[in-house]
Formats: sequence, structure tokens, C-alpha cells
Amino acid sequence: MTNTHSPERRAWAYLSGVAEPPCGSVRALVDVVGVVEAARAIRTRSVPTGFEGLLADTEPRYERDTATADLDAAARIGARLVTPDDDEWPGWSLLSLGQADTAFRGGPPLALWARGPAKLDDVSSTAVALVGARAATSYGEHVGSMLSAGVVVDGRAVLSGGAYGIDGVAHRSALASGGVTAAVLACGIDRDYPAGHAQLLGQIAMSGLVISEYPPGTTAAKHRFLTRNRLVAALSVATVVVEAGRRSGAANTAAWARKLGRPLGAVPGPVTSAMSVGCHRMIADGLATLVTNAEDIESLANPDGGGGPNRGATRSTDALTSVQKRVHDAIPGRSTATVEQISFSAGVGMGAVRSALAAMDVAGLVKASDGGWRLIR
Amino acid sequence: MTNTHSPERRAWAYLSGVAEPPCGSVRALVDVVGVVEAARAIRTRSVPTGFEGLLADTEPRYERDTATADLDAAARIGARLVTPDDDEWPGWSLLSLGQADTAFRGGPPLALWARGPAKLDDVSSTAVALVGARAATSYGEHVGSMLSAGVVVDGRAVLSGGAYGIDGVAHRSALASGGVTAAVLACGIDRDYPAGHAQLLGQIAMSGLVISEYPPGTTAAKHRFLTRNRLVAALSVATVVVEAGRRSGAANTAAWARKLGRPLGAVPGPVTSAMSVGCHRMIADGLATLVTNAEDIESLANPDGGGGPNRGATRSTDALTSVQKRVHDAIPGRSTATVEQISFSAGVGMGAVRSALAAMDVAGLVKASDGGWRLIR
Repeated sequence: MTNTHSPERRAWAYLSGVAEPPCGSVRALVDVVGVVEAARAIRTRSVPTGFEGLLADTEPRYERDTATADLDAAARIGARLVTPDDDEWPGWSLLSLGQADTAFRGGPPLALWARGPAKLDDVSSTAVALVGARAATSYGEHVGSMLSAGVVVDGRAVLSGGAYGIDGVAHRSALASGGVTAAVLACGIDRDYPAGHAQLLGQIAMSGLVISEYPPGTTAAKHRFLTRNRLVAALSVATVVVEAGRRSGAANTAAWARKLGRPLGAVPGPVTSAMSVGCHRMIADGLATLVTNAEDIESLANPDGGGGPNRGATRSTDALTSVQKRVHDAIPGRSTATVEQISFSAGVGMGAVRSALAAMDVAGLVKASDGGWRLIR
Repeated sequence: MTNTHSPERRAWAYLSGVAEPPCGSVRALVDVVGVVEAARAIRTRSVPTGFEGLLADTEPRYERDTATADLDAAARIGARLVTPDDDEWPGWSLLSLGQADTAFRGGPPLALWARGPAKLDDVSSTAVALVGARAATSYGEHVGSMLSAGVVVDGRAVLSGGAYGIDGVAHRSALASGGVTAAVLACGIDRDYPAGHAQLLGQIAMSGLVISEYPPGTTAAKHRFLTRNRLVAALSVATVVVEAGRRSGAANTAAWARKLGRPLGAVPGPVTSAMSVGCHRMIADGLATLVTNAEDIESLANPDGGGGPNRGATRSTDALTSVQKRVHDAIPGRSTATVEQISFSAGVGMGAVRSALAAMDVAGLVKASDGGWRLIR
């Protein structure tokens, strides 16, 4: 299989692990010089002026180029590397990770490794994230299972983290209901973490997706769970916490959902249960909406009504800033426009138009073409 | 005992039952002509112009004057009639019932029959109403009992409706905790309703209060429960619904609390429990605040803090800045430390340590002692 990978793909694969993800400056370099040149510049320690910080970020790993091996390893288990060049790149979902107030804590991923037949953008545009404590109670497992089945009936994918407890029952119940489910891992997509979920992850990959921003072979690490959590929130239209103790990883995912402006729900439980303390606090503090069933979740995910994604998909510009929206709206539907034309038509300065276009380019919403810019789809 | 009652008191007693309470026009007539003349006018069918409607309202009962008998009956069981002329009249608590937007649905009571040693205004100025389903679950009874005990510890009275289920456990737990509890009945204070609570109501009357706006002998009736509910909400500083089904009387009390501008709390429970559906709905709709323990109830009843009537403020380091926390943690548990020692151990400059200590001193967390500083508690 070796050597069937294009230079671009090998460059993306190299860059996906050369600095610990997410690394904003790798992304920025790709934006400026293109992916192949970015990989070459890092490998040869000849980065452009302004990108010197990258030398330190990539120092420990730049010499060890496992791109081809990683792509091969992925291919062997039916996985692939999804990049902003690919149709299934979930640019819309990741857009809010690129906003100024979130980027410093973890911008968008450079690329995503994906294992399974589902399309990444199809999953992310409908998925509800069901998350919660690993040490779930039987109540939490029962409710998580019920909600997951209901989310599937509403035509949505169920996203979670593949962990024991709530994550596990959410995935299992979605599979049992014949739905699509996706697990975002804090390790490579070839790693079965936790080990006891090897079979479950294999089942998920048969019909849904196992997703990671880490190259194959990457081991799970504490900081990667926090980094992963932002992707759980970003790659779903709403997040629901089923059970969470006083200090729970689910609270971190919930915080990301809030930060990204995504709807956040929490399931109440007995006030005598330590595993509901986190949910009750989020509700009491006005951070999460109380949800008790799949209908509540559907209202949360789709507050304007009109039913789930089975009844007509949404592709909204909700995540855009107001300037980005104006720039977006100024590009004609079926032809290209120059920066000057867009600036005139949007009433936005040329510099701001260029910034907005760059952000929307990364998000896969617009594309440079014929000396101008056009909308994608 | 007959004939020891003043003409005023006999007039109040007569008027308290001559029209089905609450009757706004009886109250209005008392305001205009005084209580004795109001009673005479109704008895003799000679009401002033503008009050003709009262003739119809009082037609069924005006001839049967049981005032003296009622006052005697009350006295025999250690009860009394509390009127706006009495010091213990809970005028402040009832004030909001006289507002234009509530009066038409049930204004303030004309007078209140009360049985027990507690003062009505003392009770109403501190009481938390704990209400809920008659068909409570064991979970609801457990939590209701726990919350009632906590409310008592906070120095508050526990008000409820004397019914089976949540009401019963709220009263019982308050009594068991040595607290004051009051039951507002939908029948006369001499009636044991429900019959199975005869002993409980007797116990409540030994230390707290049994309250009703209906004269002795009045039987419970469906419409009187709704009328009674407004008094439960009015005679307490906050209402908490412990369990409520989809259609529950507790929802009516909750609606009154909202209408009167009183804080309303609701206790979550398993989403699989029909008896928590009403609570979850109130929380999800933003009508009630989610409460899980007595501390939450205290915050609800007394949002400005400062603890309950009996209790000092809670001591927590949650509100500390990160520097203050480091300084706090650098002080040994059972001895004192000098500013220099704290500075060294916390890795915080001496000036910043002094500022932090000063702030925590004001907050009652630390104390200067023996030339150093020690933690309080």
C-alpha cells in the first residue's frame, strides 16, 4: 500500500502529529504556504519568519516521519485521514473552534483520523453528544440507554467518548437501535481504549465512526481527554450530560459546549445520588437545560422545531461572526467574486474581508477560485 | 365561656363565615364601616349603596349566627381567631394577596383561625412551605423529610397542608427535629382532615400552629383546597415542591408562589418517576429553581445570604482568589504561621500575603494569633 498516498496526504499525516494537537501555528503555516510546503519547512527546519515558535513545538518529533506508516496503518483497519481538502470535512461544525475566544484554548483540529463508513460531516451535522460519568449508576445507565435510543429514532447520530459508563451505554443503545454512533477518542483510532471496549469500538466502526485527531499509535493521556472533549462538543449539535459527579470529565465537555454556543442539556436524578450532583448544579446555575426524554433533547438540538434531521437538514451560518456573515452573503451563489467586489458589496474593509475569507476557507465554507472566491455548495 | 367575647370579636367571627371565604366585598365593607357595623348591616340586610352584591353572597348563611359558638369551640381546643386588629396578624405576608392582579382570584383572608402556641406572624415571617404529592414515593418522602429537618436547623418554620404524602413527612420531620411546623387546612381548625392525621395535627398544635380561614365546623371541600393553597404560598417566605405529578395540587400552590412573587423551588428526581414530572417541568420552564438540599432552600429563601435566622454564614474557600487560596492552604491546620512562613510556603510575596490575610480576616476565615495567623475552624 506504501507510496500510493499523494504528497498532500502524506504532508497532512505528517503534520497531524508533528506537534501535539491542537497546534494553531501548524494550521496557520498551512494556511500561508500550503500543506506540502508546511511539512517540508518543518522537516527541514526552515520555517518562514514569524513561525519560529514552531521549531520548538515540533522539536521532539520533526525527524520521525511516520506519515506513510500511519496512513498505511489506518488503511489496514479501514480508516482514513480526513482533511480540509475532503468533502466530508466538518468545517461548519468546527468553525466555532476557530473563533478568537476559543482558539487559544484549543483551536480546530488540523485533520481528523476516521474509522468507519459514516461520513464525518453527516455525523457532525446531526449528532447529539451523550456524555457522563464513567462510574455511572444503574439509573444513569438506564436513562442514557433510553435517551440514546430516542435520539436515534429522531434520525440523529449519537456521539460520545467511548468510555465506560454513560458513554458505553449511549453507543451500545444507539447500535442496538440500528442508529449511527460515533466515538471520539483521546488516542489513535487504532488503539482500543479502554481495552474492555475493544469489541464495542469495533462495532461502532462497522456502521458509524471512530474519530481522533491523533495519528495511529498515539496513546491516551490525561491532557488528551480534555482536548478530545472539545471535539465531542464541536462535532455535535447539542450536548447532553446524563450523569456527572461533583468533578466530572463530563463537566469539561459541557463547558466546551457552552463556550462553543452549542445547546447543553443535563438529566436530573435523585438528589441523593452523587452521580447527579454535577447535572443538578449545571441546571441550577442556568448553564444547562433540564431534559428528561428524547423529545426534550430534540427541542434542545432543534429549538426552531420542524423535527429532526430526517425531515430536512440544516446548514446554517449561525456560527459565523457578523462580519463573516456579511462577507458570506456578499459572495454570489454560483459565481466568484474578488476581494474588492466582496468588500464593496458587504461594506466591509478589504483587510477584514480577507480575514473573514481565511477563516471561512479553513472552515470549508468558501474557496479561492479563478482569482476570486466562491461559496462551497 | 359565652358572652366573654367582645362585640368586635363576635363580629369578626360572624363575618369570617357568613360568605364563603375569601370574599372581597365583606372585607371592603369592613374597611368602609368597621367590623361591628359591617356585621350588623349584613345581618339586618341593610348594606350601604354599592354593596348590594353582598346580599346574594351572604343569603344562605346570614341568619345563622354561630359566632359565639365558634369562638367557644375554638377556645375549647386552645384555638383563637386572629384578626387584623391583633398583633400577630401576618399583614406583611398577606400584603401581596391584596394586589390588584391577585385579589380577583382570592384576596387576603378576612381573619384566620389559629390553634397552637406559635405566633402567626412569627411563623409566616420565617416559614418555608414544603409541599408535594399525596401519592409520594419513598424517594420523595425521604427527601421531604431530609429537607424539612434542614429547614428547621436553619431556624425556620416548616409550613404545609397537613395532607398525606409529602405534607405529612414535612410536618413529622420538623416535629422530630424539634422545630416549629404549621399546617394550613381547607376545613375548620377543629376538624381532623385527613382523619388519619388527627394525631399529627394534634401534635402540630402542641408546639406550632394549625391554621384556617374557615370557621370551626367547616368541612373540607374541593374548592377550599385551591383557596387554601394560596395561603400556604402567602404565609411562607418560599415554597418548595418536593414531588409533583403531571397534575398535582402542589402545582397550584407553586403557581400561587409565583403569582405572589415568592421564591419557588422544586426538587428533581428520577426522570423515570411520574411523581417528579411536575417538578422537572417547573424547573425546565424556568418557573422554579432546582433545589437539592437545605442549603439551596436557604439561598432561595434568603438570596442575599447571611445564613438562616439561626445560623452564621457558611464558610467556604470557593470564593477565594487563587492567591488567597494558596495563602489559605499554606497556613497549618492546628497551629499558627508567620507572614514570612506563609510567604515561603505559598510562594507568594509578603505584600500579597498580607493583602490576602486581611481579606480573609474580614471574611472570617483566618485570625491573627500569637504573632502569626491561624485558620478559623
